[in-house]
Amino acid sequence: MRTDGASAGRVWDSRRTDKASRLAEAAGHVDGKLIRPDALGRVLEAVIRPGDRVALEGDNQKQADFLSRTLASCDPHKLHDLHMLIGSVSRSEHLDLFEQGIATKLDLAYAGPQSVRIAQLVADGTVSIGAIHTYVELYARMVVDLRPDVALLCASAADEHGNLYTGPNTEDTPIIAEAAAFHDGVVVVQADEIVKVGGLPRVDIPGDWVDLVVQADRPFFLEPLFTRDPKAIGPVQILQAMIALRGVYERHQVVSLNHGVGFSTAAIELILPTYGEQLGLRGKICRNWTLNPHPTLIPAIESGWVETIHSFGGESGMNRYVASRPDVFFTGADGSLRSNRVLCQLAGQYAIDMFIGSTLQMDAEANSSTVTEGRLSGFGGAPNMGHDPHGRRHSSHAWLDLSHGDGADLRGRKLVVQIVETFQSSGVPTFVESLDAIEVGRSAGMPVPPVMIYGDDVSHVVTEEGVAYLYRTDSLAERRQALAAIAGVTALGRSADADALARMRRDGLVALPADLKVDPTLATRSLLAAHSIGDLVAWSGGLYEPPARFRNW
Amino acid sequence: MRTDGASAGRVWDSRRTDKASRLAEAAGHVDGKLIRPDALGRVLEAVIRPGDRVALEGDNQKQADFLSRTLASCDPHKLHDLHMLIGSVSRSEHLDLFEQGIATKLDLAYAGPQSVRIAQLVADGTVSIGAIHTYVELYARMVVDLRPDVALLCASAADEHGNLYTGPNTEDTPIIAEAAAFHDGVVVVQADEIVKVGGLPRVDIPGDWVDLVVQADRPFFLEPLFTRDPKAIGPVQILQAMIALRGVYERHQVVSLNHGVGFSTAAIELILPTYGEQLGLRGKICRNWTLNPHPTLIPAIESGWVETIHSFGGESGMNRYVASRPDVFFTGADGSLRSNRVLCQLAGQYAIDMFIGSTLQMDAEANSSTVTEGRLSGFGGAPNMGHDPHGRRHSSHAWLDLSHGDGADLRGRKLVVQIVETFQSSGVPTFVESLDAIEVGRSAGMPVPPVMIYGDDVSHVVTEEGVAYLYRTDSLAERRQALAAIAGVTALGRSADADALARMRRDGLVALPADLKVDPTLATRSLLAAHSIGDLVAWSGGLYEPPARFRNW
Repeated sequence: MRTDGASAGRVWDSRRTDKASRLAEAAGHVDGKLIRPDALGRVLEAVIRPGDRVALEGDNQKQADFLSRTLASCDPHKLHDLHMLIGSVSRSEHLDLFEQGIATKLDLAYAGPQSVRIAQLVADGTVSIGAIHTYVELYARMVVDLRPDVALLCASAADEHGNLYTGPNTEDTPIIAEAAAFHDGVVVVQADEIVKVGGLPRVDIPGDWVDLVVQADRPFFLEPLFTRDPKAIGPVQILQAMIALRGVYERHQVVSLNHGVGFSTAAIELILPTYGEQLGLRGKICRNWTLNPHPTLIPAIESGWVETIHSFGGESGMNRYVASRPDVFFTGADGSLRSNRVLCQLAGQYAIDMFIGSTLQMDAEANSSTVTEGRLSGFGGAPNMGHDPHGRRHSSHAWLDLSHGDGADLRGRKLVVQIVETFQSSGVPTFVESLDAIEVGRSAGMPVPPVMIYGDDVSHVVTEEGVAYLYRTDSLAERRQALAAIAGVTALGRSADADALARMRRDGLVALPADLKVDPTLATRSLLAAHSIGDLVAWSGGLYEPPARFRNW
Repeated sequence: MRTDGASAGRVWDSRRTDKASRLAEAAGHVDGKLIRPDALGRVLEAVIRPGDRVALEGDNQKQADFLSRTLASCDPHKLHDLHMLIGSVSRSEHLDLFEQGIATKLDLAYAGPQSVRIAQLVADGTVSIGAIHTYVELYARMVVDLRPDVALLCASAADEHGNLYTGPNTEDTPIIAEAAAFHDGVVVVQADEIVKVGGLPRVDIPGDWVDLVVQADRPFFLEPLFTRDPKAIGPVQILQAMIALRGVYERHQVVSLNHGVGFSTAAIELILPTYGEQLGLRGKICRNWTLNPHPTLIPAIESGWVETIHSFGGESGMNRYVASRPDVFFTGADGSLRSNRVLCQLAGQYAIDMFIGSTLQMDAEANSSTVTEGRLSGFGGAPNMGHDPHGRRHSSHAWLDLSHGDGADLRGRKLVVQIVETFQSSGVPTFVESLDAIEVGRSAGMPVPPVMIYGDDVSHVVTEEGVAYLYRTDSLAERRQALAAIAGVTALGRSADADALARMRRDGLVALPADLKVDPTLATRSLLAAHSIGDLVAWSGGLYEPPARFRNW
């Protein structure tokens, strides 16, 4: 045994020393923690070093865009070879960083609007992908092997001590701030407003965690990702919604749940106060939600369906409404929404009965992906929500309703439901023999194809044709048969066999509308509690204030 | 469509109004946010109402014991039928609450020291169990359907505005505070010290989230749960450690990992600087850790094995050492450890290559549980760490090394390793035909037996006999055979078949020490980098300050 030796002379606080020297270099451009806005570029060049890992806040909705625009205008001779950690790559300057030689490597979770350009830059060799993560996975790695040297974050307001008010869109800020602040990373925050100490509506992140603050040149960019106009919901989605409500929600008594974003789930939200009410389900199902403040939930909330909603993030236009419904939403002492992606993900994984979402492609084993040819989109939070967490969990009626195994192995199952139309609106089939993701993964050199949700995690698939109860199938062949039975006139659907269908209906592996006592002739827009954004505003008593682009009434 | 009606006249801020009235009732006993300590009982009787859900902070280590002792002395005529949410039920007054009629229902995650008494109280009907959760599952439900009306929390220091310094043991405080504070729950905090505003070493939780603070009558109780005295590690554990290092860590190149608490994993930590060094593995494996500051990791840290450690909580005696190694540990600007159970759990689930832990019983299908007859212990975080998170994740060498499936279904696997001796120190076999948990679950009326880790999540089992590579087995029969091969002279082990063993060794389903080039004659205490707590202190250069009960040199 020895007591020094190997460790003698080793420096154990290199990050702290390094951070101090970076901040000292920026000192000429700051007053206390406040960066002089016109010097932001020079400050970034001082506190960031070539080769750094830089966490740039790009959440599902809000974007630290003053920081990202300024970083993209920095001198590539001074800043280069950065390794960017960006949850949602959704702004063009996120990729300009790579074209300009400032950054070379990218770890991300989602890239909706930039998914085509990313695919091109990867093919060109301009962007080297670390991995396409889920949100929580990327943030988790920030305390393991992707520790940020610098974090560039976003808040609604900051005070002179660096205390932050994130407002209704807290989203991912706390976790990124924590990962950087507690491992001697430099934390730089843009705020829409700088106030005196004591002037914040509430403190979401303590100033101790923040090194530098800058007033943004304009309010941070916020995308209304969760707003679905009821106008665009047609009879097919309404029929699907009726099938889902009877064949899944009612059958398994789903109390706590997450809805993905999409018109199919928006349709479900909008028929709760009508069809759901007729079925006598109010108070029995859909009480506790984990999702963003979807405007299409307003009628259900106003009709007394919704006990609580915990949110990943906020939604444009919903702030006044949310603030007026504190029994339902999680709000602060100041009255505004408190969202938190990590906490809501945790709830969505471990505390709820069901996830229901949609996809662009599904193969015959029920594997699905939104990655299609020429698009490298990532999946955000869907893979985490859309899986059955293994390991022990508490029991609920719905979870036990899908129980399997015996003896020690007896356990329930979280409902993971995919709701899709058999054909996409573009006319291409949703059900395919092989996911495009396999070829995309191969050509991008990925070790594993970019599948969003694995078939063995999917318990139910709902289409306009019916429900496939995949959790009751006991072979891949049977899974394929059950899917084929509800795959309409796609190639997979045409492979269905009449005898097999009769057997599966009898054995409860498949249910068609008639089996569920769903009358397709009732699937009309008159079943929607709101027909337009204007109707949602009316339901809210004028509290919902939709963004201009949705004000089409 | 209608715009009011159902919701007309509905009150949407009942919780906020209710909270205000509770705080108003306590007003006579408080100065600002500060409770007069001698009036704490009256304040609790004012802010808690019969039937409330009360989250009482009992973490893996720290305990809000001034609050729990005072609550247990409240008047059961005033406070009754409480539904307690307690992570770790580890103090006698936690159960006194039930015997005295103050509380009736309990949701928990762990009950080590109180596990026998809980089992009795459940049998008596004095305690009604909601569910035995995991830590993160319980906290997740706090924003879904177990929302606390009141949270009773614990901090090292608070200022007059309610800002909290949690010190090295942040643990679970932020998540419970957030769940209560942002849904109009009342947040009451005991602090070892109350300071003037500006006087905290750092702010871990903003004062905005805190309603009332009280100075504790003595420092909060802290259990040194992660301290293992090297004195108690014998040749069998050392042999196991050698087998694990060669057969699992080296073979799969495990870079990021979590160690459960136990002498087997402590032995592994202590042979890294000796046996691991001889194997040339430093810098190649075991670089990024998610675990509490285990004293037995000090030699590996000092020898340059450990790049980083992110922690669920702190550990008694490790504070000065941790504060002196900020490149390794996550620390605040004040220099002290920042731990965070939820974030570390997330890292342990999604960001690491391997979990390795132990159990009291394992059946022939590799299901395991620490619940045995007469004990209702719960599992804390083990079920979450000890499972293979399904759903998409990033690739690492180790994860891909266990890949399976093809096409869209191709994916890797997190290593979930159980390390057990074939017999417990009490002489009872670890391998059993049926887990006691099944009978315990049945007699306690649980819908599902209290299994800790399911066999189908376990990739490897290590005993002193060898390694079973369960992830390579493709039937339950083969899983059983592989386990039998390393189950020694237990009944399961005696069922092993020589031909099957030879085949499994050849096919890589089982490895014995000889297959791994592990020489059992080297498995002596001389291989341990430290032989005692005193040695660990010496390795730390005197920075490690073990609790009195471990000062036995």
